[in-house]
Amino acid sequence: VVRAEQLGAHITVADLGEFGLIAAIQALLPADEALVVGPGDDAAVLQVPDGRVVATTDLLVEGRHFRRDWSGPADVGVKAAAQNLADVAAMGASPRTLLVGLACPPDLPAEWVLQMIGGMLAECGRAGASIAGGDVTAAGCIMLGITALGDLAGRGPVTRAGAQPGDQVALAGRTGWSAAGLALLTAGLAGVLSPELAELVTAHRRPQPPYLAGPAAAIAGATAMVDVSDGLLQDLGHIAGASGVCIDLRIASIPVAAPITMAAELLGANWRDWVLAGGEDHALAATFPAGTPLPEGWIAIGQVRAGSGVLVDGASRSGPLGWDHFREPGNYQHN
Amino acid sequence: VVRAEQLGAHITVADLGEFGLIAAIQALLPADEALVVGPGDDAAVLQVPDGRVVATTDLLVEGRHFRRDWSGPADVGVKAAAQNLADVAAMGASPRTLLVGLACPPDLPAEWVLQMIGGMLAECGRAGASIAGGDVTAAGCIMLGITALGDLAGRGPVTRAGAQPGDQVALAGRTGWSAAGLALLTAGLAGVLSPELAELVTAHRRPQPPYLAGPAAAIAGATAMVDVSDGLLQDLGHIAGASGVCIDLRIASIPVAAPITMAAELLGANWRDWVLAGGEDHALAATFPAGTPLPEGWIAIGQVRAGSGVLVDGASRSGPLGWDHFREPGNYQHN
Repeated sequence: VVRAEQLGAHITVADLGEFGLIAAIQALLPADEALVVGPGDDAAVLQVPDGRVVATTDLLVEGRHFRRDWSGPADVGVKAAAQNLADVAAMGASPRTLLVGLACPPDLPAEWVLQMIGGMLAECGRAGASIAGGDVTAAGCIMLGITALGDLAGRGPVTRAGAQPGDQVALAGRTGWSAAGLALLTAGLAGVLSPELAELVTAHRRPQPPYLAGPAAAIAGATAMVDVSDGLLQDLGHIAGASGVCIDLRIASIPVAAPITMAAELLGANWRDWVLAGGEDHALAATFPAGTPLPEGWIAIGQVRAGSGVLVDGASRSGPLGWDHFREPGNYQHN
Repeated sequence: VVRAEQLGAHITVADLGEFGLIAAIQALLPADEALVVGPGDDAAVLQVPDGRVVATTDLLVEGRHFRRDWSGPADVGVKAAAQNLADVAAMGASPRTLLVGLACPPDLPAEWVLQMIGGMLAECGRAGASIAGGDVTAAGCIMLGITALGDLAGRGPVTRAGAQPGDQVALAGRTGWSAAGLALLTAGLAGVLSPELAELVTAHRRPQPPYLAGPAAAIAGATAMVDVSDGLLQDLGHIAGASGVCIDLRIASIPVAAPITMAAELLGANWRDWVLAGGEDHALAATFPAGTPLPEGWIAIGQVRAGSGVLVDGASRSGPLGWDHFREPGNYQHN
């Protein structure tokens, strides 16, 4: 088996071949006791003592969800893992394992693949998950098809459909960071930023979902929850739609970090667009019954009311709401 | 929600938008009682009373795993579902549900997507599975990232690693059909074939894995099992390697249907290459202890011996063994 450190940039995935590449990937994977059958068979077998399994899948396409000139291979691995693991946490579950489908050009350096897997493993470590298996094949560009599986540990899943008028709306994690970082990258400023602003670019490259906040919200009695992947307003709109309620945010209660307002000033942008409509930070947004003490990491940002849609300080917002993959102009699209 | 029959070929996925397309797909999906949470939330939740879940994923890339001029959308859906569901069956498990990731160009007719999902649902019906959720996004070509989940129903998984010298080698399902069909398509003969030969092309477009043969083999005591996706010799080689044994096939006992020898004669090809090295029919190959009566649908095709590798009638074979995704010339590659 070839190890990452033995590979120079000139060794391609075609040099290793499909089975050589799979063996090199498998050599990176630590053992996981929750796997009855790990990588290398027709399918993996994961223990889910709960008798239910939480499952979600996402595709990432080079040039749309990531750019190789803007993100290193480990960044891509972190991001691909994070966006799927966050979906599991958004059900109130604990992420347990990933399946990793990789399509790539035959001339891609094998090193890129192994470093990407390294990033995935690092993010899996943050979330308490492993890699159970996958598939590799050839394609004209790099595409990842990631599936995350998770465990409810006896709790009921927190869907989008349980919010009730009177509930509090709360947020765990950050919004606007990835969008601000993407704006800085798009402006060509990534190489000249102060450490403070560079954190925004890092946030775009490596989202940091608050995984533990998902199960914590479920334990605290959250009535609905969603992963903020497409923008806070749009994703809360999914809760409003599924629950048949109106969500009213107080913009003053949504945290806005100093680097975000600095970047907005630098670029002449509106930080509210980033914070309210920027995706890809993979914060969690949830609703809790009135009076429920919010668990650690959660802050109140609004109220559930009778009605429909999402309001900001009682009014409809006219700016961007979020993201639609088939309708956005341009090539570089997020999650 | 837009329904498939309301769409003409001029309505694109961009016309529907990401969320319109998702709603149109969801409208096609029948209810599944095994889903605690079905499509439309951050993740699906599947009941797996066994306390373990079988999980496998595959990518299919347009131009490599399928061609839109050679396969209709329903064919692509059948094939994408079949190759994943077969991996679950190859563990001795029953397929339960699919997650479907779809990346496609914004100008793809939405009708194509809904017909593709229709093919997937038809194949899920054959296997006793459903569609639990997925992801849609934009890309330059069509790519599918499919994950199948399955249930062991209290049995141990049948891995590749349990074959013992003295075991019988057995086959369920067919081999060589898809490879022969692909050869006919490549020769440009698809439109002029007799019904008998046209069946080979149908087999390439719509593989028919013997799903029930997987759990039946597990119940009968199979010691190792594999899905034949890359070619009988290559995939039996995985059992030989993982089990540390030699597998010796008797070619006379491997079924060769009349259309296959007819097509080989027509094209001047060697049918043995198709039957021994052709992939994508998703037959199941397994080993059983000597003397075990084989379950329905399984036929004996060889013996497990001490040693390594795969032999045909006691000798190494010099022809093609199977498929490597990164090393094959040309653009059209199978599974």
